[in-house]
Amino acid sequence: MKKIAVDAMGGDYAPEEIVYGALQAVKNWQIPVILVGDSERIAPLVDEAGMTDSPLVELHHAAEVIGMDEHPGMAYRKKKDASIVQCAKLVKAGTAGAIVAPGSTGAAVTAGLFGLGRIPGFKRPAIATPLPRADGGVTLLLDSGASADPELESVLQNAVLGHFFMKEVYDISEPKIGLLNIGTEEIKGKPLVTQAFAAMREQSLYRFVGNVEGRDILTGQADVVVCDGFTGNAVLKFGEGVAKLIGTLLKEGIRNGGLREKLGAWLLAPALRGMLRRVDYAEYGGAPLLGIQGGLVICHGASKRKAIANATKLASAIAEADLSARVQAAVAGGVHGDE
Amino acid sequence: MKKIAVDAMGGDYAPEEIVYGALQAVKNWQIPVILVGDSERIAPLVDEAGMTDSPLVELHHAAEVIGMDEHPGMAYRKKKDASIVQCAKLVKAGTAGAIVAPGSTGAAVTAGLFGLGRIPGFKRPAIATPLPRADGGVTLLLDSGASADPELESVLQNAVLGHFFMKEVYDISEPKIGLLNIGTEEIKGKPLVTQAFAAMREQSLYRFVGNVEGRDILTGQADVVVCDGFTGNAVLKFGEGVAKLIGTLLKEGIRNGGLREKLGAWLLAPALRGMLRRVDYAEYGGAPLLGIQGGLVICHGASKRKAIANATKLASAIAEADLSARVQAAVAGGVHGDE
Repeated sequence: MKKIAVDAMGGDYAPEEIVYGALQAVKNWQIPVILVGDSERIAPLVDEAGMTDSPLVELHHAAEVIGMDEHPGMAYRKKKDASIVQCAKLVKAGTAGAIVAPGSTGAAVTAGLFGLGRIPGFKRPAIATPLPRADGGVTLLLDSGASADPELESVLQNAVLGHFFMKEVYDISEPKIGLLNIGTEEIKGKPLVTQAFAAMREQSLYRFVGNVEGRDILTGQADVVVCDGFTGNAVLKFGEGVAKLIGTLLKEGIRNGGLREKLGAWLLAPALRGMLRRVDYAEYGGAPLLGIQGGLVICHGASKRKAIANATKLASAIAEADLSARVQAAVAGGVHGDE
Repeated sequence: MKKIAVDAMGGDYAPEEIVYGALQAVKNWQIPVILVGDSERIAPLVDEAGMTDSPLVELHHAAEVIGMDEHPGMAYRKKKDASIVQCAKLVKAGTAGAIVAPGSTGAAVTAGLFGLGRIPGFKRPAIATPLPRADGGVTLLLDSGASADPELESVLQNAVLGHFFMKEVYDISEPKIGLLNIGTEEIKGKPLVTQAFAAMREQSLYRFVGNVEGRDILTGQADVVVCDGFTGNAVLKFGEGVAKLIGTLLKEGIRNGGLREKLGAWLLAPALRGMLRRVDYAEYGGAPLLGIQGGLVICHGASKRKAIANATKLASAIAEADLSARVQAAVAGGVHGDE
């Protein structure tokens, strides 16, 4: 099994929650990890967990951290000893197979783009977000924010990336690939999208199921939904906002209610918790950055141990699947590539 | 009070629910209405409601209907006697002040664009959707789908449209205008958005509060959120999908649960219903089409009487506010206009 480089200094709860999460992945699934960051802070946490002698746990010292408020590109070039920079070096050298990156999304994308490098034939990486569905499955939305203004080629390549990801990592034999649009008819939408539709219909590598509207992203109409990074990011963040609003209004209703509401809420709490667990990003761990050489999973800044453990598992699955070679071959073979 | 032309033949529940809704607006708020459509089907419904002799209710016969599956532009030109075409004629002639349009959104936009005509200086109309917030207020998102690929000028004009709409119709003295983006920093996003940011910061007609991320659309950071129609439509429909998913998962949890969950759900039902009422589009009636001469409110195809009554109320408020003149003056005065 390939080792996973975990940026132990990234995110709001670093290094504690990051280290605990990575160690949980070691215990649960025997995934070998390299904890990258300030050794003086990380070593005691590993010791406390009684895992200092584990052959599956390594430490790699890095003295600096790229903060959430720094310009990602500039900080990446200047801080050679930042934990995320060191993570990229470990993958580049072949020591690790993938990175788990909580903290600055911009720094993580920079690490993927410049530290690991693009897959030949791919101009832009894409952030792919796995979304829970009512049927228990998962739909991958990409790009969810890496490229705000991509060319047609990049949108099309997102389909290739999503296809192989769902096939190899989620074991779906023939993933349904959809195109995010504002109507189901072929002629709908903006030029970028109508052109993408035409090209996607022409290819035979993956199963194109046509346009998917925003309201059908979560219904299972497609396993992969392709879009530009501006739309994908706006859509996902609004979904977060809606879920939060519903939660707030419900809590208010209970708080302002009488004994009836309070008793009802107490009785219904397990079902409510079960529901929240199913739409909780922590269950899905993180969003992989695709289109780069080697794996990289971006985690929410607020990630705690459970999210980090699941992200480490996802990173390991990506490292084992060796997606880069497959997508490179497909694009070199003419599917949405230059020739 | 200006009369409101209601397309009684549009939507899934026409003409019954549309007529009942319009008559409810007459009873509740003394709004004069013209029911446009097949008189033979509409007259008995008015009679049944005992309102045949009401001076506030008129019938206007229209023999045809534009269906949801027809090409809106072509159908609009061909079917001169379609109910929505006749509605536009009534406003154009000054007989009515605004339209309530359930049914095909495409036909409604066409009616606004060609039947009523654009406001001089405005290239593209925008669909403005009022969204409920946790604080009890409303945020207007526009464009939510009229122009999938607008030029910069149209995005900027959406700010002017939203400003006057919230000021005049929702009585907010100085509405906060935000720009939908994928980060809060000035340099974030695609060129269309960074250019819009620069121009919005320069003007002094309205209160620009900067970039708003998807997750903050519902928090009250802004009263108006401006975007292109592709992003707006995708965002709104995904929000619908998220709300539906949460509802489905909760119902499942209750159905698969035992006595505890069922009793809890029964006790909590009033609070749950209260919450749903606050995020229910029917409460808000519909989405106005702005940037055109005269008022037009687009309703969801699944609208029932309550949504239609509220849409009629909104249409009346728009007709009384005379928005067209105000936005035309602002644009002619140089705010996001040609000169």
